[in-house]
Amino acid sequence: MAHDIRIVTEADLRGAVGLDGRLVDAIERAFAALASDEVVMPPILSVALAEACGEVDVETAYIPGVDGVAIRVSPGAVDTAGPGLSGVTILCSARTGAVQAVFLDNGYLTELRTAAAGAVAARHLAPRTVETAGVLGTGVQARLQMRAAHLVRPFKRLLVWGRDPGKAAACAAELGATLGVEVEMSTDAQEVVLQSQLVVTTTPTRSPIVRAEWLHPGLHITAVGSDRSGKQEVEPAALAAAHLYVCDRVCQCEVSGELEGARAAGLWNADDPSELGAIIAKTAPGRERPDDITICDLTGTGAQDTAIAAHAMSVLDGAATVVRA
Amino acid sequence: MAHDIRIVTEADLRGAVGLDGRLVDAIERAFAALASDEVVMPPILSVALAEACGEVDVETAYIPGVDGVAIRVSPGAVDTAGPGLSGVTILCSARTGAVQAVFLDNGYLTELRTAAAGAVAARHLAPRTVETAGVLGTGVQARLQMRAAHLVRPFKRLLVWGRDPGKAAACAAELGATLGVEVEMSTDAQEVVLQSQLVVTTTPTRSPIVRAEWLHPGLHITAVGSDRSGKQEVEPAALAAAHLYVCDRVCQCEVSGELEGARAAGLWNADDPSELGAIIAKTAPGRERPDDITICDLTGTGAQDTAIAAHAMSVLDGAATVVRA
Repeated sequence: MAHDIRIVTEADLRGAVGLDGRLVDAIERAFAALASDEVVMPPILSVALAEACGEVDVETAYIPGVDGVAIRVSPGAVDTAGPGLSGVTILCSARTGAVQAVFLDNGYLTELRTAAAGAVAARHLAPRTVETAGVLGTGVQARLQMRAAHLVRPFKRLLVWGRDPGKAAACAAELGATLGVEVEMSTDAQEVVLQSQLVVTTTPTRSPIVRAEWLHPGLHITAVGSDRSGKQEVEPAALAAAHLYVCDRVCQCEVSGELEGARAAGLWNADDPSELGAIIAKTAPGRERPDDITICDLTGTGAQDTAIAAHAMSVLDGAATVVRA
Repeated sequence: MAHDIRIVTEADLRGAVGLDGRLVDAIERAFAALASDEVVMPPILSVALAEACGEVDVETAYIPGVDGVAIRVSPGAVDTAGPGLSGVTILCSARTGAVQAVFLDNGYLTELRTAAAGAVAARHLAPRTVETAGVLGTGVQARLQMRAAHLVRPFKRLLVWGRDPGKAAACAAELGATLGVEVEMSTDAQEVVLQSQLVVTTTPTRSPIVRAEWLHPGLHITAVGSDRSGKQEVEPAALAAAHLYVCDRVCQCEVSGELEGARAAGLWNADDPSELGAIIAKTAPGRERPDDITICDLTGTGAQDTAIAAHAMSVLDGAATVVRA
């Protein structure tokens, strides 16, 4: 049966969907819904491409009350995910199953929903007052994470760490201009962590950068870089030493997040950590004291894909191409 | 990174991709590849939509040597799959992972790849000579299956059975005109089976139509209707009584095909049945005598989706819309 399908390009999306409070709220609602039993979020489907030494991942989730179900297709060669990450999202009606839109977003929606999750984590776990924020990494996600964090914790000072001083300087300059805060670049990750109340790690490293002995009272860390088995940004001992370690989804973090390394090191074999959704829904305790040390591990969920695709559909103007399929 | 993505509508596809020998050969190669260990075909990802009382299914497969990997998204309410089945297919490059095309095919590619699999099954399992073919069911798939069967077993006479005599007459008239063979409609499924050497069942029934006592020497049956748990077209005793019962994929047939009912009835709890790919690759025995009775159970595989999407890409002319994504 012929029906209209909207074909939405990255340019359409960049014109209509930004990193703002409405998006953060939509992503927050998706996490809260994950704490209920009504969300249907199957494990990520992954098909390996031998020739490309890569894979194609498919994520999806059904969230009651959201009028859309996204099917997120993210092709990528292993270890080359980053700014050039391409991908498409299919949005189906949750009421009829019909395909409503195809977002040819080249990963833009994924970048935004990952950044928005960082804002949600900071809103619920960071200390109420953040004077100084720090970011490890200098790519697209580093920039977006700091913009997202500033929405919910309007810090006055920002420290940017990268292995490449040139990239760190460029990232710092851009963020200073965008956020209007004092920004410094640093080549000493320890200094960045020690001076910050909120740190976001955005690197693809396989040997942890953040050491347990760098933890200090009143610190919150959100780790977003690890999204594949073997990647690790935070030393396992730090997870065990923090007052609270929170996963976006335990079953994902234990195979592709920081929890994988902690379990392998024998440092987290007891109960499962809490999930971010449970803290939002107040069914699990969050930060209890200003001096608590908290860590949040974000691997990326299909619920975020569904939330941002439905949000995009609701804010898009008539610019997108409509194809009678 | 911006790159071109082809947006291909159902109309584009109907104009370029037909049910012909090249397509059947492409699907046959996909099945043969399934017999090797090099194909990567994850289990179907399915997300339930509570409001729609339906679901969205995602199938995919990587086949070495095929320059494309399809991600097939098939939304559908339970028990309403059929001619109106909608859906889209994403084609990614197997070499780079990049999205190359989006097929807004409304299920057309699924219908064709299912029919082509029927031709492959008939080519490898039906008796060499088929005078009379029979089809149970009168929908789109009944018509396509008989066109597909005629490509590989050019029968002279066709029997069409349906519960609704009007629909059976319409299907018979259309197939008579298309194939140029003698066609009769029938309201007696037993008569159709008894008089045919090749029978294809295409119904969504949950109570088996084909009885074990209808089996006769030199009969081949292909069952394509059962694609969900609980559906069943062929009595379990028939599977056990046939000389050879073949699955497209055992792990699918035991949860959504005829094998499910046979196992539940305690009639198939020993070794796994052979798979169609193994018979094509000659690593498992096929029909051994003209009088053998054979049954093939097709539930639909991601390998077919990849094969037909790559085939479509190779035969499409410049008609499709190209979007710079």
